[in-house]
Amino acid sequence: MRTATADRIRAALDGLDLMTTIEEGFVEYSDGRAVVPPVGELILDRGEVHIKYGFVRGDEYYVIKVASGFFGNSARGLPSGNGLMLVFRQDTGVLERILLDEGHLTDVRTAVAGAVAAKHLAPVDIERIGIVGTGLQARLQLYHLETVTACRDVLVWGRGEQQVDRYRNDVRRQGFSAEGTKDADDVLRSCNLVVTTTPSSRPLLHASALNSGTHITAVGSDTADKQELESAILARANVVVADSIEQCRKRGEIHRAIADDAITGEHVLELGDVIANRSAGRVSQSDITVADLTGVAVQDIRIATAVLGALDADDQSEDRRCVTE
Amino acid sequence: MRTATADRIRAALDGLDLMTTIEEGFVEYSDGRAVVPPVGELILDRGEVHIKYGFVRGDEYYVIKVASGFFGNSARGLPSGNGLMLVFRQDTGVLERILLDEGHLTDVRTAVAGAVAAKHLAPVDIERIGIVGTGLQARLQLYHLETVTACRDVLVWGRGEQQVDRYRNDVRRQGFSAEGTKDADDVLRSCNLVVTTTPSSRPLLHASALNSGTHITAVGSDTADKQELESAILARANVVVADSIEQCRKRGEIHRAIADDAITGEHVLELGDVIANRSAGRVSQSDITVADLTGVAVQDIRIATAVLGALDADDQSEDRRCVTE
Repeated sequence: MRTATADRIRAALDGLDLMTTIEEGFVEYSDGRAVVPPVGELILDRGEVHIKYGFVRGDEYYVIKVASGFFGNSARGLPSGNGLMLVFRQDTGVLERILLDEGHLTDVRTAVAGAVAAKHLAPVDIERIGIVGTGLQARLQLYHLETVTACRDVLVWGRGEQQVDRYRNDVRRQGFSAEGTKDADDVLRSCNLVVTTTPSSRPLLHASALNSGTHITAVGSDTADKQELESAILARANVVVADSIEQCRKRGEIHRAIADDAITGEHVLELGDVIANRSAGRVSQSDITVADLTGVAVQDIRIATAVLGALDADDQSEDRRCVTE
Repeated sequence: MRTATADRIRAALDGLDLMTTIEEGFVEYSDGRAVVPPVGELILDRGEVHIKYGFVRGDEYYVIKVASGFFGNSARGLPSGNGLMLVFRQDTGVLERILLDEGHLTDVRTAVAGAVAAKHLAPVDIERIGIVGTGLQARLQLYHLETVTACRDVLVWGRGEQQVDRYRNDVRRQGFSAEGTKDADDVLRSCNLVVTTTPSSRPLLHASALNSGTHITAVGSDTADKQELESAILARANVVVADSIEQCRKRGEIHRAIADDAITGEHVLELGDVIANRSAGRVSQSDITVADLTGVAVQDIRIATAVLGALDADDQSEDRRCVTE
């Protein structure tokens, strides 16, 4: 059994085609090839812990992922998010690797899923990208959108002026020109690709500001309590897509909209079916589309397996080098 | 973050009072101080994986345990059981230690729970100890009974003659004199402390062979399918005790007996309540008592926390030695 540190995992990610990796995972999930039990959850006084786990039938490995959020950590100089992934062999149960990614793989697979949703659902011409939130996920989402759209014009909303300024400076270095706003609905008014990334438990975006032809990817809400989109937005959308229909009935924006009687949940499509062209997704450039991403274990399985392959190849080339020398 | 190997963990266990550790865990569980969500489970082609996790309120740590059984492994020269425990801080979510115990801590806490059940439920005079099964758990159960009873006379049942002979030889070295039998019900006929340790899915012991004054600890059945005791045994018992009433309604002997309409489940006591003297347990030496142990995460939490303390103390004395030298 070997462990891999966060630094080594970051290096291993560089050479991987993560868009394809995550797309394949969603298709496998919607095909029923992935076995993904309900999320395990611990609610502690100062944080919450999610255990996501499962396997794809016929694969070599199964994966157990632990991810935590402890919101008082930043005051102690610690990251609020943390985690690791355990990769085991399906034939023997032997632990193959411990990926001590400190939550980075969860951050990345979440951001890549946002890019996948935009690739398959956003309108052809992106005029402006709207980002709600100024944290790490707000940065990663934009970073992974680079390959999906040529648009480099961003409007960002955040609670604090400082955070908005820091975000604008950071993404400028990535080649994006970003403006800030104090009114979250401005993002809906002026952007046709919007990504929401906050842990808000009250709607930040409202249907009154929504234009036709907009795509929204909601990644912030992953529990039964969190909500970033007013339920009327989902009611007005032509297409509502879940990463997992089963999970989104219990967590996230779709769960909230069903609870508010804004939608019945009957017409929700699944992302893997849209990717595989079994469901239509966006039909017209004027459609309003919403993707609700609550995070499915198959993303963890796919990214962990891909990283494992890269680490194994790396180890082998290291071994060969030693033999040659 | 530090890892501890199985060898180091075995050494750390030596100095611990595991009976008290596990007793405290059961009392905390029955008190409602332990937060223990339902077991996570993966069923693969060649094995099964259980994820048990939780925490005791007010403790320093929470624990996530992964344990697997892959029954074809022995043909490959690998142990069938495997596992590890992850210990995290409750205040920050930081991973404190990875205990790479390869399933040993699960084996030990299961065996100690058997000894705890016998201590609180078995009759005062043990004439003969009956063991059903000849595997690792059959050995560990007997080993941990050493402190509970002075009886060293054993009758063992196993499917294969070779396995029975090997078991008899092994426990002889521990100071037990063991006979073998080919009829599992012989164990019930001649022993008044019986421990069942097999993964059988059909009853091995039958009520027709049951004497008054017998205590049975059933540790083999931990899923909805497995069953070692004919349901009529639980119907005849004066006292039926579960390690977790909630869990035993879904798994193990009590689950099976309820499904067979042999008992209603209303009068089942919980082991932690018996330990704390809140429930009576055995009232008369002629009572028949059955303890159904399906394995509760609080046992994992308690043994992992105890091992962590021993490892920390060990590290500190190592540090002091280095400073002094």
